[in-house]
Amino acid sequence: MVYVILVYDIAVERLNAVRHVMKQYLNWVQNSAFEGEITEGKLEELRLRVYDIIDKDSDSIVVYKISNPSWINKSIWGIEKGEVSPIV
Amino acid sequence: MVYVILVYDIAVERLNAVRHVMKQYLNWVQNSAFEGEITEGKLEELRLRVYDIIDKDSDSIVVYKISNPSWINKSIWGIEKGEVSPIV
Repeated sequence: MVYVILVYDIAVERLNAVRHVMKQYLNWVQNSAFEGEITEGKLEELRLRVYDIIDKDSDSIVVYKISNPSWINKSIWGIEKGEVSPIV
Repeated sequence: MVYVILVYDIAVERLNAVRHVMKQYLNWVQNSAFEGEITEGKLEELRLRVYDIIDKDSDSIVVYKISNPSWINKSIWGIEKGEVSPIV
């Protein structure tokens, strides 16, 4: 298992389709971010499903993998928008 | 020094002001994200400057701090939008 922070910048016409897939694998954090614990296999599955939807020449997704979630210190400035997260 | 991934969801009328401050401290990754190495003191300074701008009851910023940048494995799906980053 790895912990993933995923940030995306995707054209509005593909946004709902991409989010629909991502929320099957990760927790919604806010408008442009998901996070969560996932296996490498599931992450690869997610990548392939996302690649079927996005335009790889204009959409962008940045995936930060951290092996151990205890290495991440998460804090919120302003309001918490996301789902309850396993790291707090 | 800590490594920070910062993701924001801020009302459009305050977006430019917030980005203007953030880019003085961190590297722009994409539409809603910055990242970079920063001291705890500078991060606190950034927080105070951001708090002067945002509406803390509706805007949201999630800050992930990771002590060691080598603990982060970063990859891009689609195009790279951000500035050149110290972790690759």
